[in-house]
Amino acid sequence: MVKPIRGGVTAPVGFKASGVYCGIKSKKAKDIALIYSETPCVATGVFTTNKVRASCVWINEKILRRGKAQAIIANSGNANCMTGKSGFENSKKMALKAAKCLGLKGNSVCVASTGIIGKPLPISKIAKAIPILVKRLSRAGSKDAALGIMTTDRKMKEAAAELNIGGRNVRIGAIAKGAGMIHPEMSPAPHATMLCFVTTDAAIEFTALRAALNIATQKSFNMITIDGDMSTNDMVLVLANGMARNKKIVQGTKESKIFADALTIILLSLAKLMVQDAEGATKFVEISVVGAQSEKDAREVARSVASSNLFKCALYGSDPNWGRIASSAGQSGARLDPAKMKISLGGELVLQNGGPVRKKEAVLRRVFRQKNIRIKINLVLGKASATAYTCDLSAKYVQLNSAYHT
Amino acid sequence: MVKPIRGGVTAPVGFKASGVYCGIKSKKAKDIALIYSETPCVATGVFTTNKVRASCVWINEKILRRGKAQAIIANSGNANCMTGKSGFENSKKMALKAAKCLGLKGNSVCVASTGIIGKPLPISKIAKAIPILVKRLSRAGSKDAALGIMTTDRKMKEAAAELNIGGRNVRIGAIAKGAGMIHPEMSPAPHATMLCFVTTDAAIEFTALRAALNIATQKSFNMITIDGDMSTNDMVLVLANGMARNKKIVQGTKESKIFADALTIILLSLAKLMVQDAEGATKFVEISVVGAQSEKDAREVARSVASSNLFKCALYGSDPNWGRIASSAGQSGARLDPAKMKISLGGELVLQNGGPVRKKEAVLRRVFRQKNIRIKINLVLGKASATAYTCDLSAKYVQLNSAYHT
Repeated sequence: MVKPIRGGVTAPVGFKASGVYCGIKSKKAKDIALIYSETPCVATGVFTTNKVRASCVWINEKILRRGKAQAIIANSGNANCMTGKSGFENSKKMALKAAKCLGLKGNSVCVASTGIIGKPLPISKIAKAIPILVKRLSRAGSKDAALGIMTTDRKMKEAAAELNIGGRNVRIGAIAKGAGMIHPEMSPAPHATMLCFVTTDAAIEFTALRAALNIATQKSFNMITIDGDMSTNDMVLVLANGMARNKKIVQGTKESKIFADALTIILLSLAKLMVQDAEGATKFVEISVVGAQSEKDAREVARSVASSNLFKCALYGSDPNWGRIASSAGQSGARLDPAKMKISLGGELVLQNGGPVRKKEAVLRRVFRQKNIRIKINLVLGKASATAYTCDLSAKYVQLNSAYHT
Repeated sequence: MVKPIRGGVTAPVGFKASGVYCGIKSKKAKDIALIYSETPCVATGVFTTNKVRASCVWINEKILRRGKAQAIIANSGNANCMTGKSGFENSKKMALKAAKCLGLKGNSVCVASTGIIGKPLPISKIAKAIPILVKRLSRAGSKDAALGIMTTDRKMKEAAAELNIGGRNVRIGAIAKGAGMIHPEMSPAPHATMLCFVTTDAAIEFTALRAALNIATQKSFNMITIDGDMSTNDMVLVLANGMARNKKIVQGTKESKIFADALTIILLSLAKLMVQDAEGATKFVEISVVGAQSEKDAREVARSVASSNLFKCALYGSDPNWGRIASSAGQSGARLDPAKMKISLGGELVLQNGGPVRKKEAVLRRVFRQKNIRIKINLVLGKASATAYTCDLSAKYVQLNSAYHT
């Protein structure tokens, strides 16, 4: 049983966090965050598969090869990507300065950045803020950290849950950010700008932690899209400090499954929060594909429909134009038979046997006028399924992203 | 030498065309068109690779297996896609009725539709209009036909050229439509809703005609995008009636190369007209990728940047946010090295050695305020190149496509 609890990264035992304003953002809002575990952690991450990757992605890849870390330092307002060699040096300095102020070894602090690409990172402002961040570390600091990593997000995003592993209470907590440039495709061979930092007091071996993160990422962040643009900085990092004193979770056991399921619930709740907070969006849409020949096919169809600009415009206009759903399903490249495919909008069947099911337009319009819409596509070819999450494409999205240098 | 000339599908010898209003469109605008050759033609086509394909695509695939046709009937306002068995029968009836009224065999008329998906085709209105279309066929009818296939297009699209093949003047003419749901990926194994109908009085063998169409499509329609949505009805059809009486063009000869080049010029001019007429667009952008390891890589990078919603919003806002170009290049999956990649905006180098080239913002903003923008991406990895054509993503595009049932 996984029980949702209040809080974020400081919900698990032994974690502290903080967030302050250091001067990167033009508006005076928190723009730097620190997460710290009292004891060393088993750690892993997944990273964007974009071939243009920020310095922080490269550095974390290297650090996490050891499978260990104890803290995460992250700034918002600047992605420190495509900033040359000095950009790389700046990310390193950021991590090293945090390590020094925390009294840790240099390779035990992960680093993350999010914001505009191609602008030099104001490292001196960051360096000045780090001792303050360390001083303000607290068990109540998760919210401040969550605020410190926000860019165009309107809402702070955190989630936590408690589960039982072998008679011991284990907690998982997380914070995340992301409202635009969201179309993550993260893989463990490091290569999403969404950021998500997860903490847990579970005692868990590295292999089990990595497997759980992969499963959870595939079913959560890798199934959301806001605008189809994959970021250079996307990442999920997990720190597990073992302070719950459960019997160590080993890969392939019932406990590893329980842990992976709980992690999936946490990450999915945060992934949904991102889509609900999407730039300019007015609708939240769940696209379930069932009856696919393979999970890959199901994922491709769900993500293709979730990414269709025309479908997303129809959502914005509350126009139940399901032809755009059928067309984008066909564009996906997945195996499908148009004569077999069935499409339902909010439980109303609209397509079967290759043609329309006559419906009162008013009924369908009512479905599309809702804030939360469920679309089901049954390929009637097999047993695999997948669900993607998306939002509408609004005139406001365009305005927000055409404004100078967001 | 390829010389542009005035006119469209009736510029080549022996072709007539017409277009009328038959009642499919709610506004009284031409919605059906006919193109006819006085003599039988060598014919071929390329079709959408969307797995959901309209009835007309299936029917043309069958007809063109013989490599012969003599006329094309096409309606706008209804795509006749996802309309079940009766939809398929309706497309067949449309072709057969046209054949009958023209005194041709049933399998010599190609059929095309464009418009909304999932609504029954009003076949009786179409049937009534066909005799009128036949009566109005004329050497001056290209414009009427071009008007008859328009949907959200603001401008009628036609192009024609004259070239010399072995001492004889040969002409190629074409009409086209398309302003939304434009992201064609057409292949000869029939599978854009863009429509393009090409006529030529060249004497040319089937193999040479098919090869020329493939080359020309790859460099033109398959390199444009408006909204990233691939249609169920995209197609290019070519009819070659041989009435120029040139020595028959055979594949692999100098003449076949001259013909393919001329066809590429015609199709590219129409592909550019589509992007210039794109729904809601205010900018026309050419993205040239050079220095790629393979043409496939170059095409993928060019199309990925051309498809980025964030980059297209930046274009709309005249914001030279080249980080979005770099990021979408990296998203493409093509082989690239961020440390080597160079990006220029209107001739101004902005990225090299993995970092920004310091520029006055005012200079870059001036480039992005223009109506026609050239972007160059040099991957510095090889010798292959490709160019894609795109437009900005405007608030008007969203408004147009969120309006009820477009």
